[in-house]
Amino acid sequence: MVSAPPKPRSSSGQVPSSRERSLVPVGMATILPHAAKQVRRLEEQLLAQVSRWGYDEIILPTFEYLDVLAPGLEPELIEHCYQFVDRTTGRTLLLRPDATAQIARTVAMGLTGATLPLRLSYRTSVFRYEQEHAGRGREIFQIGAELIGLDDVTSDSEVIDLMIECLHTIGLRSFKVSLGHVGFIKGLLMRSGLSAQGQKFAEQAAARKDLPRLEEILATERISKRAARAIREAPELYGQEEVLARGWVLAAGDPALAAPLERLAQVYQLLCAAGHRESLLLDLGEFRGFDYYDGVVFDVFAEGMGAELGGGGRYDHLIGRFGRPLPSTGFGLDVDRLFRTVEFPEEGSVSARVDYLVAAPRRSARLLTLVAAQLRRTRSRVVQQTMKGGDASLLSAAVTAGLAQQAAALVVVGAPGIDHDDVLVVEPLAAHMHGCRTANLSHLSKKVGLADLVASARRARQQVKER
Amino acid sequence: MVSAPPKPRSSSGQVPSSRERSLVPVGMATILPHAAKQVRRLEEQLLAQVSRWGYDEIILPTFEYLDVLAPGLEPELIEHCYQFVDRTTGRTLLLRPDATAQIARTVAMGLTGATLPLRLSYRTSVFRYEQEHAGRGREIFQIGAELIGLDDVTSDSEVIDLMIECLHTIGLRSFKVSLGHVGFIKGLLMRSGLSAQGQKFAEQAAARKDLPRLEEILATERISKRAARAIREAPELYGQEEVLARGWVLAAGDPALAAPLERLAQVYQLLCAAGHRESLLLDLGEFRGFDYYDGVVFDVFAEGMGAELGGGGRYDHLIGRFGRPLPSTGFGLDVDRLFRTVEFPEEGSVSARVDYLVAAPRRSARLLTLVAAQLRRTRSRVVQQTMKGGDASLLSAAVTAGLAQQAAALVVVGAPGIDHDDVLVVEPLAAHMHGCRTANLSHLSKKVGLADLVASARRARQQVKER
Repeated sequence: MVSAPPKPRSSSGQVPSSRERSLVPVGMATILPHAAKQVRRLEEQLLAQVSRWGYDEIILPTFEYLDVLAPGLEPELIEHCYQFVDRTTGRTLLLRPDATAQIARTVAMGLTGATLPLRLSYRTSVFRYEQEHAGRGREIFQIGAELIGLDDVTSDSEVIDLMIECLHTIGLRSFKVSLGHVGFIKGLLMRSGLSAQGQKFAEQAAARKDLPRLEEILATERISKRAARAIREAPELYGQEEVLARGWVLAAGDPALAAPLERLAQVYQLLCAAGHRESLLLDLGEFRGFDYYDGVVFDVFAEGMGAELGGGGRYDHLIGRFGRPLPSTGFGLDVDRLFRTVEFPEEGSVSARVDYLVAAPRRSARLLTLVAAQLRRTRSRVVQQTMKGGDASLLSAAVTAGLAQQAAALVVVGAPGIDHDDVLVVEPLAAHMHGCRTANLSHLSKKVGLADLVASARRARQQVKER
Repeated sequence: MVSAPPKPRSSSGQVPSSRERSLVPVGMATILPHAAKQVRRLEEQLLAQVSRWGYDEIILPTFEYLDVLAPGLEPELIEHCYQFVDRTTGRTLLLRPDATAQIARTVAMGLTGATLPLRLSYRTSVFRYEQEHAGRGREIFQIGAELIGLDDVTSDSEVIDLMIECLHTIGLRSFKVSLGHVGFIKGLLMRSGLSAQGQKFAEQAAARKDLPRLEEILATERISKRAARAIREAPELYGQEEVLARGWVLAAGDPALAAPLERLAQVYQLLCAAGHRESLLLDLGEFRGFDYYDGVVFDVFAEGMGAELGGGGRYDHLIGRFGRPLPSTGFGLDVDRLFRTVEFPEEGSVSARVDYLVAAPRRSARLLTLVAAQLRRTRSRVVQQTMKGGDASLLSAAVTAGLAQQAAALVVVGAPGIDHDDVLVVEPLAAHMHGCRTANLSHLSKKVGLADLVASARRARQQVKER
């Protein structure tokens, strides 16, 4: 499968914390403004798509009691949690390591009401302890959706269809969704006569695609050659329809294997009908890391990103562990990995951070505030600043400030000899400044009536809106 | 000042965790979909306003090293932090208790570049340990802005002006910003001859407006009657311009008191010029809880909400504690308290959660997916669902599902005797169902061509957009 090493991305804005200084814990992200803007835009696009499918966002606490959430977490995950003691109760708290378990707990408590099916979405961080050199994040930004209360094929295909549409929405094209059913390998392992513990170990090895370990387990328990061959073959079975055909041969009429295959085939066909065939890869060895999955499961990978961008699957028994059995399925996406995978359109050198810098000498602070407020009312992005120094250097100081703030245009109010209803404008700022010297500045600025400036700002915003 | 007890708000969607069950730690919020939608809308409105003033969002890690962040936190706050040990390094980690300190640390490290002034915004949670019965949140949703690298009056007024505009943006009208300068009380205390420790204690008492404690401190150190009278009077000095006049009398020409008064007067005048006089309350006793504040400071209160909605002030020496002295000012708002204060427009009973429920018998799952996808392409909000049961009950099952999902309209595809290019439509769904019986259903649905349905959905979205 797609498993090239992750491509370093210089423009990501993620600041890696250097080990020498160790001012910020390894794996914790600092996302600087330029990147933060792109991350937030990604999040908004994803949430808008999810909302269009009728999913509503829920906001859940960042930490909660371990004993309450534990039924929804597998032991290995609990070991990777950040835990601390609640001073009030003495009970152990943990930082949310998984959004799905928390939603399951909330739904089982009845907080989301009785209406089913329930479509919930979330945008949140989850926290997992990782070895310092694992190169993985400890704070993971996720967006996901859960479809609760339905157990049919259409709901399996709905969440995958939605996830793929989410990826299209943000402009991701070359990705593959590997689609499997945990029941297939489980069925093979059960039929082979492995002990319960052997089955568990083998499932874990299968989830990691660790074939040598799988061999070892099969050998230790002296599994028949035929059964071992089938188990060994399953993780290699990925591709298109031919995988299902081979699956039917391995199933050999066993209903415990036929049921997962039939379900998988139906979901695959629905997704192909929805136009997603190119994005799909059937994978009979697909076996998600979380042991709450118990039906159709999936992972999404992209070229150049070694780790999965997200995934999900059916977890019919998870909510039941919290006391209210409800069939469910869902997916989660890793926002930071999406951010590092998506190609953002290059912003031309003319792009400005703000529309206007409004500058004034200190004595004109009131006028400055009023002019800036009028421009903001047109929905323009406006930075205001008073200038130190005398009137002689006012314009050059303002130009310097405007360039530093990456303003598209400069507006100077309160300049000597200029009426209160007029301002000096330099626009476009960056273009005018190429190779100019201070002496030329006064030629570049033009006197404009304040009302005309505001009207032209309004027209400019209107054009942006119409585009 | 405004200090009525907080008004309970039943519609808030915040689920208080009952002590008996204690499934969720006290003070941790679960925000259910209806409320989450309103909270996110508030956040977006606030961030859009902040962005219009040229502030860029930065995203910082949820936890970091205590030893690194400690210089920016006062000892009392550190005691209220959630702390835990990093397994890798053995160092103490803490959940972010304050966004401003974290931004100061980040700016001092040079991560945000060299350009000044720097305008940063954030949307984040901060975490503070609170007694179980304090009734305060432990996870506090905040939005704020910091203006870094300027020490002039205009920057003081800019952040307050911006904060007030933020409150107007979300429709808050009756609020008061109390405006003071920490230098005034500090100056009075210093002039009185109090010991250094006495000054510190007195500042803390002043911050809490704890007059009996203040008296006790003055008595213990045998402060002169005249000095004590001035100190005692300051916390009572709040109102409009007359407060400044009285302040000048108390200052009695002392430059250490005149400077803060002069600065405060200038900021007040600029804010009045910007049209905010009605929202302002000068308060010579204003003294924010955080000891990093060292200039003009402010709090915002609203009728019916005992605790402040937010506040901020100048912190010229905070970033310097991390090694890069930079004058700065900023504000933060408590999103949950804003949510509980703002009046949301009543949604009429006709308001729907989604635009369409598209329903189909199981055999028509492919058609269902295609119709739903076409409707979503018009940017409508669409839920899809296959119906159990036979053809006879298809329409009534679909109506029931549509009402449960609060859909404005119902679309049934794959009904018997209906062409593939046609669908059955019931619209508006809720209105039609008042007092109707299943027998009448077939009269309420009308056959519509799929192309016509999509065209009408597109027209409806266009109308929403134009409104």
